[in-house]
Amino acid sequence: MATQSAVHISEFDRETEVEAAGEGLWRAEISAGWNIGQTPNGGYLLAIGTRALSRALPHPDPLTVTGHFLARSKPGPMQIKVDVHRPGSSTSTASALMSQDGEPKVALLATFCDLSRANGITRHDDGPPELPPLEDCLAYEGGPNEALAMQQRVEQRFAPQSVGWTRGELNSRSDMRGWVGFADGRAPDLLSLAFFADCFPPAVFTSMGPVGWVPTLELTVHFRAKPSPGLLRCAFRSASITGGFTEEDGELWDSDGKLVALSRQMAKVLRWG
Amino acid sequence: MATQSAVHISEFDRETEVEAAGEGLWRAEISAGWNIGQTPNGGYLLAIGTRALSRALPHPDPLTVTGHFLARSKPGPMQIKVDVHRPGSSTSTASALMSQDGEPKVALLATFCDLSRANGITRHDDGPPELPPLEDCLAYEGGPNEALAMQQRVEQRFAPQSVGWTRGELNSRSDMRGWVGFADGRAPDLLSLAFFADCFPPAVFTSMGPVGWVPTLELTVHFRAKPSPGLLRCAFRSASITGGFTEEDGELWDSDGKLVALSRQMAKVLRWG
Repeated sequence: MATQSAVHISEFDRETEVEAAGEGLWRAEISAGWNIGQTPNGGYLLAIGTRALSRALPHPDPLTVTGHFLARSKPGPMQIKVDVHRPGSSTSTASALMSQDGEPKVALLATFCDLSRANGITRHDDGPPELPPLEDCLAYEGGPNEALAMQQRVEQRFAPQSVGWTRGELNSRSDMRGWVGFADGRAPDLLSLAFFADCFPPAVFTSMGPVGWVPTLELTVHFRAKPSPGLLRCAFRSASITGGFTEEDGELWDSDGKLVALSRQMAKVLRWG
Repeated sequence: MATQSAVHISEFDRETEVEAAGEGLWRAEISAGWNIGQTPNGGYLLAIGTRALSRALPHPDPLTVTGHFLARSKPGPMQIKVDVHRPGSSTSTASALMSQDGEPKVALLATFCDLSRANGITRHDDGPPELPPLEDCLAYEGGPNEALAMQQRVEQRFAPQSVGWTRGELNSRSDMRGWVGFADGRAPDLLSLAFFADCFPPAVFTSMGPVGWVPTLELTVHFRAKPSPGLLRCAFRSASITGGFTEEDGELWDSDGKLVALSRQMAKVLRWG
């Protein structure tokens, strides 16, 4: 049975696994399979931290998770220390600190709940972002100087306007949108939304071209609902950059047209060279 | 000299003071002057936590601060425990836990920097939110069942459309905008933006009326620039509610037309009993 499950387990499930390593301690093995260049993707790390938090908290579902990226991580062992602040009745809150060789890499703060009990008002002023049908959307495999190992893990198709920058065609606003799912066919779930919220090229590329490295300093994901199987529809937008600091606001909708997550990150736009 | 400074110190400065109380420990006195009903305003608490963090970290300016509100706070003593994760060269990151009588109330995660050294790209796709001139905007002192002590501390003037709900006139979208500053004339600074990001009535009131209590579960503020003296122009918007959970996205601009902060909170819309 162990052999059978090892055969069927998805890349994302296997490579976000956490194992107990003592009181409030967890251990993960960061895979190089989600790298952007030499650096593991921030959303992938956030998903691992969120998975450790889910093991430590009594509620099943992440509701809001914030990660601060302190230093570049690398593939290999990661230790995760979890401090539970309040195991409440309807929500519970905890912090986590992810470290490699004793050096802090990612700090998290998260509140969990049971989304199946969220029975309050539902009201959406807008529908999912407009996207051409999948067959009219385009793949992007990374530029000539990029080694996007992560692209092997995801199925991604961008609105043609969102990859105009790869041909030198820039838009007036930063708006990166497309379809996304796992390349191995694993269905999206709540945990995976932490990753999908950070797996598109920076939205600022659509208006400014590939101006530089845009590392994530902080990423917050609001989880709204469990996604249905099928590709997600996503849009990421940046409207302001001040002294190099920009926001990137994301919305993730499932194949049923349901809003499943909102994200906002603070990133730094660092010009090449 | 102590007497003189006690005379001139602003309400906000005095009532967000923190004093050292041991290794990594700070102590504040929560004032009832910033209450909404019986509960201190969340942004006021976030400002106090941010002030404790600023004392513990080597960088002068908050860059991104997230607070999770675990349980209702009350006026009186608050203990703040700060854990510094990384006192880096360009940014530094720390967590804080605010407690009363040993019960955790607010958990924070923050990254600080020196904004005067932020010399990267600046680009804004949009200007400040449109607002009628101050003399055409309206005060809102709270409804008949509300005791908004906080309103005595702020000078607030709303766009007439944003307070239509007080006369039963609802808008199609949730959009709460207006001018704001301190009633005692204290100029806004970065720290005060943590408070101003949470001092307007809930944006959902503009489209749904005063449907209920809308407690903040989590509030994240991105600090962009030091505000110039004068009233801030703010707009807060909510576009989606799922099972009672909503986002409220804020933008805060200063009197010079400069974006000084973005905020996003997750709140719960709880219908009145």
